[in-house]
Amino acid sequence: MKAIAVEPGAGTPALVDVPRPEPARGEALVRTLRVGVDGTDHEVIAGHHGDVPAGADQLVLGHEAVGVVEDPNGTDLERGEYVVPTVRRPPNGTNAYFERGEPDMAPDGEYVERGIVGAHGFMAEYVTSPATDLVAISADLAEHGFLVEPISITEKALEHAFASRAAFEWDHESALVLGNGSLGLLTLAMLETIYDVDRTYCLGRRDRPDPSIDLIEALGSTYIDSRETPVSAIPEAYEAVDLVYEATGYAKHAFETVDALAPNGVGVLLGVPEPWSFEVDGGRLHRELVLHNKALLGTVNSNRGHFESAIDTLSQLPEWVLADLVTGVYDLEAYDAAFGTGDDVIKTAVEFDTV
Amino acid sequence: MKAIAVEPGAGTPALVDVPRPEPARGEALVRTLRVGVDGTDHEVIAGHHGDVPAGADQLVLGHEAVGVVEDPNGTDLERGEYVVPTVRRPPNGTNAYFERGEPDMAPDGEYVERGIVGAHGFMAEYVTSPATDLVAISADLAEHGFLVEPISITEKALEHAFASRAAFEWDHESALVLGNGSLGLLTLAMLETIYDVDRTYCLGRRDRPDPSIDLIEALGSTYIDSRETPVSAIPEAYEAVDLVYEATGYAKHAFETVDALAPNGVGVLLGVPEPWSFEVDGGRLHRELVLHNKALLGTVNSNRGHFESAIDTLSQLPEWVLADLVTGVYDLEAYDAAFGTGDDVIKTAVEFDTV
Repeated sequence: MKAIAVEPGAGTPALVDVPRPEPARGEALVRTLRVGVDGTDHEVIAGHHGDVPAGADQLVLGHEAVGVVEDPNGTDLERGEYVVPTVRRPPNGTNAYFERGEPDMAPDGEYVERGIVGAHGFMAEYVTSPATDLVAISADLAEHGFLVEPISITEKALEHAFASRAAFEWDHESALVLGNGSLGLLTLAMLETIYDVDRTYCLGRRDRPDPSIDLIEALGSTYIDSRETPVSAIPEAYEAVDLVYEATGYAKHAFETVDALAPNGVGVLLGVPEPWSFEVDGGRLHRELVLHNKALLGTVNSNRGHFESAIDTLSQLPEWVLADLVTGVYDLEAYDAAFGTGDDVIKTAVEFDTV
Repeated sequence: MKAIAVEPGAGTPALVDVPRPEPARGEALVRTLRVGVDGTDHEVIAGHHGDVPAGADQLVLGHEAVGVVEDPNGTDLERGEYVVPTVRRPPNGTNAYFERGEPDMAPDGEYVERGIVGAHGFMAEYVTSPATDLVAISADLAEHGFLVEPISITEKALEHAFASRAAFEWDHESALVLGNGSLGLLTLAMLETIYDVDRTYCLGRRDRPDPSIDLIEALGSTYIDSRETPVSAIPEAYEAVDLVYEATGYAKHAFETVDALAPNGVGVLLGVPEPWSFEVDGGRLHRELVLHNKALLGTVNSNRGHFESAIDTLSQLPEWVLADLVTGVYDLEAYDAAFGTGDDVIKTAVEFDTV
């Protein structure tokens, strides 16, 4: 069968032939429909993040998938059922994090990630997975099922952010999303249409006309060009915000977030920057965190519960948002177009089979 | 009546004569028994933090008090009842933070702090306070009632830290307290004797023999000399910890905390450093926060609920811990001894009247 694989660092993914997998006991065979492409894929392709499975010289890409059960193989699933696979798997047998349903909290060495680190991904015509790592999705949502994984990342991030503010009455009237990539825009759409945040802002560094700016404004949000208004100037130019969601991977944003936050605010960090040393006014940042009860949280990955919430969220997102967000779904023959990064690209997917 | 006041920045507090206050409607008159001295007092004395009340040229010190109701003045209190006052008051009338019992979450301008910023403190023979800001304490605890306020600071800090980890199953088997001052040691005692943390560490920069090191070791904790083992080297020398409690006000500790934390750990910051610029590997810190789900929270002050928890905590702390911690209680005539900062000092208080 066909798959899309990469030698990390080689720079371009390739269409390869690999054997069709056989489901082991407890696993189902899934026919892949669509698999999304995101920033993590580009980091894996560039060799900045992730790794091939032990013994392999290339990695099948893809961690944002939707498929249909081809062979339940004795599990509780049904043939023809639409499913979204979660991403993390235990590296050897299982461990406490997986046993309690929290693979997203497992530290280094206690997990592999399909399509990212140590395990082949879902960009293949067929994939196998433990049935317990396949989350059912209704037929009407299957077309956008490749958005469930990125939404689940935000479900977790917001769950942790809200938990950190749960010891008091927190007003989250304003939010700032750093980054106008697909994850930032999905999150912005969630904050605007589901979380009922009064005022939202989205930071990017693109010129108009731009489809991401159009989407930001169509959502009723305010676009902030970081070349004109750096993050730490946002409180003066606009307002200090209750929530910051960082999805740029730009290391200085973690620190500038402290300045952008209103008292009692929380900044949730999702980017994965490379090491980079620079000067900060650490005294002022430390003092500001303390005297205004601010919080900064890092969060990675998501668990099955977050996938279930994400499917619910997907069902609530307006159709026009999804239509504007997904700028391209490409057949397997045109798979390389899905890895393009032009200014007209927001979110793309590879279609292995029609939904 | 006698009071201890300071012109912030003048360097030394003085015994002054001020009029005995008259309770307004809703206020009780309290005869002060003991008032503790802490790092914040020293910052106020040095002029680094806090301010005099509007129109005043000096500030009556003291925010860690225990007293006895002298005149309930028609409130629900009873004459002879022991009470601990909370610290924050609304600056003009009231506001939403005070109305919902969360003065600790009020931002700049929405509060004054008795003995710290904008309102006279409790280092006076008599004080008045709204009855709703006086928390009853039993007679047997009154002797140590001046420890309720600092304990309440930690009650809040730990409440927020635990809340931030409430979205998953958090194992807090190890904790590191940065700072072997009285707040650090009180917190260490709480973590060891009440929170049931398996392994604790306390960082300081003192030579043996030293009473704080003796107390650390008597608690079953491990003393770490920061001159030999800097914070970021603690994971290698000892272990990465689940919880860091920063009570040094040393700005670099906020950043080194990220390194000291185990995956999924939380660092809670309480110090209030001055501005200070230095270089950090911001990319690595940001990446580490994200990939290991780490959190960093600032927290300040505490509310009535935290005072109530603190009284419960005080009742549970072993008597020997309190005896070792309180190195001096001084009569009003010897008040200046309570502001001493020698190596033999852990926690001191001024006694205005015998308990």
